[in-house]
Amino acid sequence: MGLLVEPPLANPRKLLAYLVYMSQNIFNIEHRCSKSKARSGQVTLARGVVNTPIFMPIGTLGSVKSLTNQDLLNLRAEIILGNTYHLWLKPDMEIMQQAGGLHKFGGWKRPILTDSGGFQAFSLSKIRKFTEEGVTFRVPASGQKRFLSPEISMQIQTTLDSDIALVLDECLPAEATFAEASSAMHRTHRWAKRSKTEYERLKKLAGHSNHLFGIPQGAQFSELRKQSAQMIKELDFVGYSIGGVANGGEPEEIMYSQVVAQTEILEDHKPRHLLGVGTPRDIVQMVARGIDMFDCVYPTRNARHGSLVLKNDENSYKIVHISASRYATDFSPINPDSRIPELREYTKAYLCHLFRSKELLAYRLATLQNLEFYIDLMDTIKAKIKSDTFGDWWQTYDRVK
Amino acid sequence: MGLLVEPPLANPRKLLAYLVYMSQNIFNIEHRCSKSKARSGQVTLARGVVNTPIFMPIGTLGSVKSLTNQDLLNLRAEIILGNTYHLWLKPDMEIMQQAGGLHKFGGWKRPILTDSGGFQAFSLSKIRKFTEEGVTFRVPASGQKRFLSPEISMQIQTTLDSDIALVLDECLPAEATFAEASSAMHRTHRWAKRSKTEYERLKKLAGHSNHLFGIPQGAQFSELRKQSAQMIKELDFVGYSIGGVANGGEPEEIMYSQVVAQTEILEDHKPRHLLGVGTPRDIVQMVARGIDMFDCVYPTRNARHGSLVLKNDENSYKIVHISASRYATDFSPINPDSRIPELREYTKAYLCHLFRSKELLAYRLATLQNLEFYIDLMDTIKAKIKSDTFGDWWQTYDRVK
Repeated sequence: MGLLVEPPLANPRKLLAYLVYMSQNIFNIEHRCSKSKARSGQVTLARGVVNTPIFMPIGTLGSVKSLTNQDLLNLRAEIILGNTYHLWLKPDMEIMQQAGGLHKFGGWKRPILTDSGGFQAFSLSKIRKFTEEGVTFRVPASGQKRFLSPEISMQIQTTLDSDIALVLDECLPAEATFAEASSAMHRTHRWAKRSKTEYERLKKLAGHSNHLFGIPQGAQFSELRKQSAQMIKELDFVGYSIGGVANGGEPEEIMYSQVVAQTEILEDHKPRHLLGVGTPRDIVQMVARGIDMFDCVYPTRNARHGSLVLKNDENSYKIVHISASRYATDFSPINPDSRIPELREYTKAYLCHLFRSKELLAYRLATLQNLEFYIDLMDTIKAKIKSDTFGDWWQTYDRVK
Repeated sequence: MGLLVEPPLANPRKLLAYLVYMSQNIFNIEHRCSKSKARSGQVTLARGVVNTPIFMPIGTLGSVKSLTNQDLLNLRAEIILGNTYHLWLKPDMEIMQQAGGLHKFGGWKRPILTDSGGFQAFSLSKIRKFTEEGVTFRVPASGQKRFLSPEISMQIQTTLDSDIALVLDECLPAEATFAEASSAMHRTHRWAKRSKTEYERLKKLAGHSNHLFGIPQGAQFSELRKQSAQMIKELDFVGYSIGGVANGGEPEEIMYSQVVAQTEILEDHKPRHLLGVGTPRDIVQMVARGIDMFDCVYPTRNARHGSLVLKNDENSYKIVHISASRYATDFSPINPDSRIPELREYTKAYLCHLFRSKELLAYRLATLQNLEFYIDLMDTIKAKIKSDTFGDWWQTYDRVK
């Protein structure tokens, strides 16, 4: 299961990471921004060290759509995300058990974070019911009835053998009232406790070295946000995934304040993941507020719709709809500065043609471009935190039209 | 346009290729099978030498579906095929002209063969009319009316700047009578002449070093097949693409005899391409009958349907439907002997899951597998011709269930 057995005595840096790991404090903060809450460091997991702030590409069904593992290594991805809900249904847990977990199944050797399945049960199934025991829902494609509880989610994630698992939480529609949000939050705390108990039982049984993150919720109510952070913190997880802020559509200041309400309470020395966020601008804004880990479908899903994220300059990026007429005869490279040879060699006009013709290669090239952009952006952020220039930069970073 | 200007005097092998090229005899036969009509050698084109017998992957719209040019180089593809009909419609010839041809548009630097567009105008458009002047048809997707003549086909292929262009021919439904087939054949000969006249005029204007192949037709009537080969031969093309034998469904002996009726007449020293054929077995059978070049959607299209061609042993291959239940828990590599790392590293169970989940990566992996199989098969064939063991082998080569 990738447990580090021998302390790497000869290498001080590795030894430090090892000691951090063994202490169950998985996060080492190396640099801090003197003008914001941004920090950079390493999250040490059984299958490798993750350098934060980090972006985690989404591999819903155990595959970052259109890419191979080698593509992800070329992009310098350090950790990817898998969706418990989707993998539970396909290939199913019997096959996953036989494969020996998601790493062995898909061949990705670096860390994987899995979510709990709760968000998809909530958002994908029109027919679903939350009770104290768990959530019952119908699978949209098959109509099949399924039941997911904190315990079942932990069992699935243990079978997936992900490096970071998440507790099951109750998700809410954006229009939830204070009373509804409060009730769901309290249930989320009870579920977090049940999740932790089951995960620790299973961890002992399986003998693995993976970790469980807690999820503070609280909808758009800052009082609940604070209360939730406090209660989840008391359960003493090694890290946190802040949930429920990416419902879409809310003004960014509201989203930012929801996050700040919680980062102020959560322990400084534990890694903070923000679920489902966001645009490049969002990410920079959130790093400044003390977030260390991000995941979002934005770069990969937009890629499949021909929407490219391109660096404009050090302070800005732009969105390019590559199938637009203006690109049909733009014979400049997709990205002349790319580390990926294909993005330097193929032209915008060719990619425009591939999208217009629905050629399969289109999706791969666009996905490479968008993920490279995100991963390079995280490298820029890390470098700026290290040199302590992040504080003068982050507020200026934005999209240009 | 890739014209070889300086004779490569220092390198005897290159010099020979150069002289062959300059003599407008593009084919050099190196080895012959003593027990069949099989031969191996090189077709020398402006953009590179093609080692025959060769399989040409199909890049309909200027992209071998799901693959990059680097993938094709890794597969050792030496020449690909583009479809004039499709490229004429998308991206269109104005963009292609601005790009400077198909090589520059798609970045593939090795040779390209383009067909004339006639077969697609015949097979894809339900509304189409052949007259002496050309073929008028409606584009299925848009309903748009288009007219294709021998001259227009040559103009398009000159814009595409393909290394090998094909004359426009009249295609026929499989149930055509002798009278219909005879009439179409005579028109095909008149069109071949018009194609050649126009191609030579354009070649002089453009100053390129590409070549035009003639197409003998004749449907299933061996008398017409012989007559057509004779008449097309008299037009003195540098090579031939035998047409109309891959209508599908006919017994293989009929297809074989149609080909033999023509290879016996066509000059031995000119390369022979068989349009749209075929299965691995077909290819081996046809090499034994003197065919040098092949193209077929079989490996790439089947790949996208999850149908893999795998080597069984030296004498046989098998077809594997990878999404079948038996592969859901087959954790052996897709192809342990592959030259492509991904085919050794990913398992059949994973590929089964990707196909069942319609994940984009599925199509790329399966396409790599099937094209590698075809290209390796051609290498096996070449080696057996060279060592003169082909004659004892080809009749035994077959698919196993």
